[in-house]
Amino acid sequence: MENFRFQARTGFVFGKDAELEVADMLNKYSAKKVFIHYGGGSVVKSGLLGRVEDKLKAANIAYVMLGGAQPNPIDTLVYEGIEICKKENVDFILAVGGGSAIDSAKAIAVGALYDGDFWDFFDGKPIERALPVATILTIPAAGSEASDSMVITKTGDIPLKRGSGNHHIVPMFSLLNPELNYTLPAFQTACGVADMMAHVMERYFSRTKGADVSDRLCEAILLTAIDAAPIAIKNPNDYNARANLTWAGTIAHNGTCGVGRASDWATHGLEHELSALYDVAHGAGLATMFPAWMKFVYETDLDLFVQFATRVWGVENTGDKKAVALKGIQALEDFWSSIGLPVNFEQLGAKKEDIDTLVKMLHINKGDSFGNFVKLTMDDARKIYELAV
Amino acid sequence: MENFRFQARTGFVFGKDAELEVADMLNKYSAKKVFIHYGGGSVVKSGLLGRVEDKLKAANIAYVMLGGAQPNPIDTLVYEGIEICKKENVDFILAVGGGSAIDSAKAIAVGALYDGDFWDFFDGKPIERALPVATILTIPAAGSEASDSMVITKTGDIPLKRGSGNHHIVPMFSLLNPELNYTLPAFQTACGVADMMAHVMERYFSRTKGADVSDRLCEAILLTAIDAAPIAIKNPNDYNARANLTWAGTIAHNGTCGVGRASDWATHGLEHELSALYDVAHGAGLATMFPAWMKFVYETDLDLFVQFATRVWGVENTGDKKAVALKGIQALEDFWSSIGLPVNFEQLGAKKEDIDTLVKMLHINKGDSFGNFVKLTMDDARKIYELAV
Repeated sequence: MENFRFQARTGFVFGKDAELEVADMLNKYSAKKVFIHYGGGSVVKSGLLGRVEDKLKAANIAYVMLGGAQPNPIDTLVYEGIEICKKENVDFILAVGGGSAIDSAKAIAVGALYDGDFWDFFDGKPIERALPVATILTIPAAGSEASDSMVITKTGDIPLKRGSGNHHIVPMFSLLNPELNYTLPAFQTACGVADMMAHVMERYFSRTKGADVSDRLCEAILLTAIDAAPIAIKNPNDYNARANLTWAGTIAHNGTCGVGRASDWATHGLEHELSALYDVAHGAGLATMFPAWMKFVYETDLDLFVQFATRVWGVENTGDKKAVALKGIQALEDFWSSIGLPVNFEQLGAKKEDIDTLVKMLHINKGDSFGNFVKLTMDDARKIYELAV
Repeated sequence: MENFRFQARTGFVFGKDAELEVADMLNKYSAKKVFIHYGGGSVVKSGLLGRVEDKLKAANIAYVMLGGAQPNPIDTLVYEGIEICKKENVDFILAVGGGSAIDSAKAIAVGALYDGDFWDFFDGKPIERALPVATILTIPAAGSEASDSMVITKTGDIPLKRGSGNHHIVPMFSLLNPELNYTLPAFQTACGVADMMAHVMERYFSRTKGADVSDRLCEAILLTAIDAAPIAIKNPNDYNARANLTWAGTIAHNGTCGVGRASDWATHGLEHELSALYDVAHGAGLATMFPAWMKFVYETDLDLFVQFATRVWGVENTGDKKAVALKGIQALEDFWSSIGLPVNFEQLGAKKEDIDTLVKMLHINKGDSFGNFVKLTMDDARKIYELAV
């Protein structure tokens, strides 16, 4: 096991009506002027945003608002948010929505305290401060409600989708009401499941040996998601299924599953180019790329893939490591298919003839190689994209 | 799943030489005058205390010290510590040792900011503030390095062993170096394993339905402890086994395993009277009482005990729920025996003829009934003690 540091500072209020504590929590963190950032119409139509506004008004907490955060959130809205925050002397950022609204809010929180271009922090500059961020989560998926990371797409001829982050952007508190997920369409629920499972698997498939407690914690979250996802998709109003997915999504990405080990994140890298190019859902892209990545790398550590197959998917350990490992990968692919996710280019809506462009985009973002579990060259990346066709 | 609040504020530095960061971390938390609290001679003999003092001296951080915390820490040392803290204007408490030193330090941290008798907080008064506490952990067991609880024994003709706590006593940071556990005797290692497993099981055996993610997290920690304990006992210097036990012990009791559910703590209640009366190790007492408690209550929720047997112990699910459940309880007992723990009164050094006294002590602490999974009367408690004979 490797040395590590861990602190999970986010305070959670979890359960029915959790969002109604928003004013109490903002007061606890001494928020004076709040910037509320949200996405499309669903938080408006559902009445959630209205409930939040009512609570802030009743508590005399001043606020300004900016909606419009889209899946694969873009730089232009971030610039707009930063300008508002600076002009209005905002001292606290509240994201209401899913991972896109939260990531956009985090970028605004960083940019609001910076004189230069916020994209500098996606170009390698370390974040030194940020306005405090809190969230009201409507989609269990990205884990951004408790993570130290954010992903923003810089628009342009060749869109750049990049991640950044450190402890300064970990939310101060997050209000998680699983009932807010009842209206999520089945496909969006499934994409969220793929995203949280991917966050776990990017940590699980590690070169670090001996971090058994992390292995077990990873498997716990995967097993939870595998059990709960079909229930939530079949019965969208099943509270416990929604609640288990919500907390699994949070724990998947708040650091709990990654202690004592190197993570990989190669598959996230491969996927980001897909969602940047086609604007597909990140979770759908991950469902397409993860099995392909696995098929490319599994022989590097057959024992770990056997462990994954037997512990997570209940594959019988026949002793034929290669066959058992491949059955585990197939089980993942079958599971994702069963909940309606794409697992290849055609199903995703990606094109074989774009692979050159995807590799070109990847090269701009990653340089000549990327990944930890297996260091991948651009040639390797091409082969993995081809495996996903 | 039940609504919950969760915040795990403790900052961890985990790994080799973690204790050498003590001065940097104290500075980060602006400590000016530190009260160092420790136990017996081992932290002195091992040189750990000297290393800590050297770091504080080099960083010009003032400190006072008090040793002598014993297993089942007692009120008299707490009073002594409180007096020193008040006299010396201490603003930060650093515990160096295992759960006893940490619990004693927590009680001192609470009492140092209170004009009355600190025991009031063990008599039902809510804790409203405490000096900040940090720890350097030498024994993975009690989980006190990240928990919101403490247990102190009030000495007297009939000793009172009681718990108290809330978020005010959660450590600000904990430095966890698994190498510090290399010198732990096998029996003490095993007692620690029983303690952490008990912390998980007090949460696992819950009346709450549907908190599957917590079930899975509990099982992850149990499986980790079950795998690592025999290795650490056989090869005391096995770093990974020590590291996995250390982190398992922390996660077992920092709230991670208990989200969304009611906990029980009946077995801790039953055990506290044993260690209060005989001054036996808490973990040894738990190993004796948990199987007895299980045998008394398991028919209340056969499905949960079947899940425990199959998922944690790999018992084959034959469909005969009662038989499978009992095999799981037997597997726990066998495992604890295999690592040298007592699982009955004789092995523990307790006497059947003291059961009257134990029940009398329990009645003073718990009133007429206690426990959540099954509400136990004093008659029930007597029967459980008898099952442990």
